[in-house]
Amino acid sequence: MAFGWIDEQAELRRRAGLVRTLRPRPSNSPLLDLASNDYLGLARHPEVTDGAARAARDWGGGATGSRLVTGTTELHTELERELADFCGVEAALVFSSGYAANLAAVTALAPHGTLIVSDAGNHASLIDGCRLARGTTQVVAHADPDAVRKALGTHDGAAVTVSDTVFSVDGDAAPLADLAASCREHGAGLLVDDAHGFGVLGTGGRGAAEGAGLAGADDVVVTLTLSKSLGSQGGAVLGPARVIDHLVNAARTFIFDTGLAPAAAGAALAALRLLRREPERAARARAVAGELHARLTAAGLEAVRPDAAVVSVRAPSPEDAVRWAADCRAAGLAVGCFRPPSVPDGISRLRLTARADLSEGQIERAVRVIGETRP
Amino acid sequence: MAFGWIDEQAELRRRAGLVRTLRPRPSNSPLLDLASNDYLGLARHPEVTDGAARAARDWGGGATGSRLVTGTTELHTELERELADFCGVEAALVFSSGYAANLAAVTALAPHGTLIVSDAGNHASLIDGCRLARGTTQVVAHADPDAVRKALGTHDGAAVTVSDTVFSVDGDAAPLADLAASCREHGAGLLVDDAHGFGVLGTGGRGAAEGAGLAGADDVVVTLTLSKSLGSQGGAVLGPARVIDHLVNAARTFIFDTGLAPAAAGAALAALRLLRREPERAARARAVAGELHARLTAAGLEAVRPDAAVVSVRAPSPEDAVRWAADCRAAGLAVGCFRPPSVPDGISRLRLTARADLSEGQIERAVRVIGETRP
Ligand SMILES: Cc1ncc(COP(=O)(O)O)c(C=O)c1O
Ligand SMILES: Cc1ncc(COP(=O)(O)O)c(C=O)c1O
Repeated sequence: MAFGWIDEQAELRRRAGLVRTLRPRPSNSPLLDLASNDYLGLARHPEVTDGAARAARDWGGGATGSRLVTGTTELHTELERELADFCGVEAALVFSSGYAANLAAVTALAPHGTLIVSDAGNHASLIDGCRLARGTTQVVAHADPDAVRKALGTHDGAAVTVSDTVFSVDGDAAPLADLAASCREHGAGLLVDDAHGFGVLGTGGRGAAEGAGLAGADDVVVTLTLSKSLGSQGGAVLGPARVIDHLVNAARTFIFDTGLAPAAAGAALAALRLLRREPERAARARAVAGELHARLTAAGLEAVRPDAAVVSVRAPSPEDAVRWAADCRAAGLAVGCFRPPSVPDGISRLRLTARADLSEGQIERAVRVIGETRP
Repeated sequence: MAFGWIDEQAELRRRAGLVRTLRPRPSNSPLLDLASNDYLGLARHPEVTDGAARAARDWGGGATGSRLVTGTTELHTELERELADFCGVEAALVFSSGYAANLAAVTALAPHGTLIVSDAGNHASLIDGCRLARGTTQVVAHADPDAVRKALGTHDGAAVTVSDTVFSVDGDAAPLADLAASCREHGAGLLVDDAHGFGVLGTGGRGAAEGAGLAGADDVVVTLTLSKSLGSQGGAVLGPARVIDHLVNAARTFIFDTGLAPAAAGAALAALRLLRREPERAARARAVAGELHARLTAAGLEAVRPDAAVVSVRAPSPEDAVRWAADCRAAGLAVGCFRPPSVPDGISRLRLTARADLSEGQIERAVRVIGETRP
C-alpha cells in the first residue's frame, strides 16, 4: 500500500515514547509562558497588533504574488529600510519566514565550488540550506573558531562560514568576533543566523553582530526572523547592498515564494519602532534570563549560563523531560521540552525563554514550579 | 575578497539584460492587475482583511513559537478542520508558506530508499523538496503518465509521484486521474501541489484532486497555498490522518519553523468561508481565463488554452517579454513576465491571471493593451 511504511514508523515512535502531538492554546491561556520566543513581550502589544490590523486593512490579507511580481509593497520596502538602518547595514530583504531567509542566504552565497563551513549545532534551516546549496559542506565542532580556521585552510576557492549567533537549544552564543577573524584570515565570508540574538543582544537589541563590532562589515551577512523578538512572522537577510541584490536575483525561496503578508510586515515594523523607543527591553530580557539561571542553579538544577534569553535545563532522560514539562504545565507553567530527535547531542532538556515583561513574582513562581516538579 | 564573485555574476546579468529589480507598489495602485495570484479577488475583500485584523487583535502579531511548542492556537486548528472538511479529506496541516508545505510533504514522504518521480515542469518548491529528501529523484517528461509508469516500473520499494496540478508558468493542468492510475498500478503514492488549482478547479473551488475524483483517497496527498485563491499567506498539506500525523512528527519545515501568524490564518479562514458561500467565484475565474484566451487568440497572439486561471502568452525573446510587460505597465496594465532562468524551457512569456472579479470592460481593456504593445 502507498505510504504503508508510515504506520511502521508511527508504531516505532509510539513504542519509544516519542510521539508528538499538537496542543492548541486558547487566546486567553491561563498558563505562565516560558516557552514562546516572544523575548520582548511584544507579540500581543497593542501597537504591534494594531500594526498588523492596519496593514491588513490598508494592503490586503496577502501580498498576492512573488516579491518580483506584485508581492512588494511600499510597506515591505519601509520595513526593509528601517531594519537595515537599525542594524547599521546597507540593505535588508524580507522573506516569508526565517526558515526561508536562511535557505535563501546559504544557497545563494554558496554556489558550486564554494566551501561551506557549518557549526555542528546549527539550526535545521541552516542545515537544510547547506544541503540545498551547490557548494560542499564541512561540519565543524560547535563554537570552535580554530576548527573553522582549519577547515578554511583546506580549501582554495570561495568559502563561507555559517553559524547561529545564539544556539536555539542551549542558548549559548557563538564566538562571533573570533569567527569573523578566522574568516578574514582566509578571505571567507561569514553568514550568521541572529534569530535568537536580534532584539536581545547588541546596543538596544541591534543583535549579536552589532554587539561583536561587525555591523555593516562587507564580509558579514546576517539573517534574522521577525517571529521571535518582533512578535510577528517572517525573516530577513541583512548585509551589503550587493549581497542583497544578488539574493533578489538568485535566491529561489525569494523568487518563487509569495511575499510576506502585509499584516506580518506591519506587526514587525510596529515592534521594531517600539524597540527603538524602548531599548531597555533588550537588557531586561537578558537580565530576566540571568536571574532565571541564578535561581535555578541555586535550587540545584543543572542550567546552562545564558548568553541571551534562552535558558536550558538538563533532564536525565527524554521520558523525564516529557513528564517534567507536563507536570509544569499541570502546575500552570508552559516550558519548552527538547528531546531526540530534535537535539543534535541527544540530551533532553527543558527550554525556558526569558521574556522582558516577566515580573519578579512570575520568575519566582516559574523557578518554584520547576524545582517542585524536578525528576 | 569575501563574496567577490557576486560582482562578476552581477556584471554578467547586467550584460545579458537579466537584472531583476523590486517595484514597490502603493496601496492604491492605479494599475489594472493581471499579474497577482489573487484568483478569486479576495485579498482585499473586507471580510478577509477583517478576518486578519480580528485574528491579530485576538491572538497577537505572531504565533510565538513552533507549532509543537506555543505556535498552535485554536485558530490554526479551526482553519485545518475547515480546510479538510471543504476538500473532503481526513486531515490538514497548516504551514508558514506553500513553499514550506511542499518541502515538508516531499521530504517526509520520501525517506531513504524511496523513488520520487517528479514532473519536469514542477514548481521550485517541489524541486527543492526532492533535493532535500533522502529518497532518489527521477525527473520525467512533463504531464506524461506513461513516463511515470515507466519510471515506477524500474523500482521495487516505496515510491511517490510528485506533480503540480496546474503548472504555474503555462497554466496547463496535469492529467491527474491518469497519474493516480499509474501510481496505483505500482502501489505508489501521489503527491500533488494544488497551489493554482485550489479555489479555481473542482466543485466550487475544492481543487484539482476533488475535480479528478481523488478527494479523500488514501494514497493521495495534496499541498496548497493560502496565498493565491485565499488571498492570504501560508500553506497546507491535506490527506489521510496518518500522513498528517507523520508530518507533525517528521517534517523539518513544520517542527523547526514558527507557526503561521494568526492574521494570516484568520484571513485564510474568512476567505474559505466566503468561497463556500459564493462558490460561483471559482467558475467565474475559469470563465474569465477562457475569455482572455479566446480574445487574445482572436487578436492573433499565441496564448496557451488555460486549464485554470493562468493564461500564458508567448513572447519572441526575453528582451521582447521585458519590453512588452513594461509597455503594458506604462499603459496601466500589470502583467507577469516570465523569462530565463525562471522558466524551465527557456521560453519567455507574459503571464496573465484571470481574477474572478474582473469586469467585461477590464478584460476588454487588458486584451486591447496587450495587443497594442505586442512585439
Ligand atoms: C536559530 C533559528 N533560525 C531560524 C529559525 C526559523 O525562523 P522562522 O520560525 O521565522 O522560520 C528558528 C526558529 O524558528 C531558529 O530558532
Ligand atoms: C505551484 C506553486 N507551488 C508552491 C508555491 C509556493 O507557495 P507560497 O508562495 O505560499 O510559498 C507557488 C507560488 O508561490 C506555486 O506557484
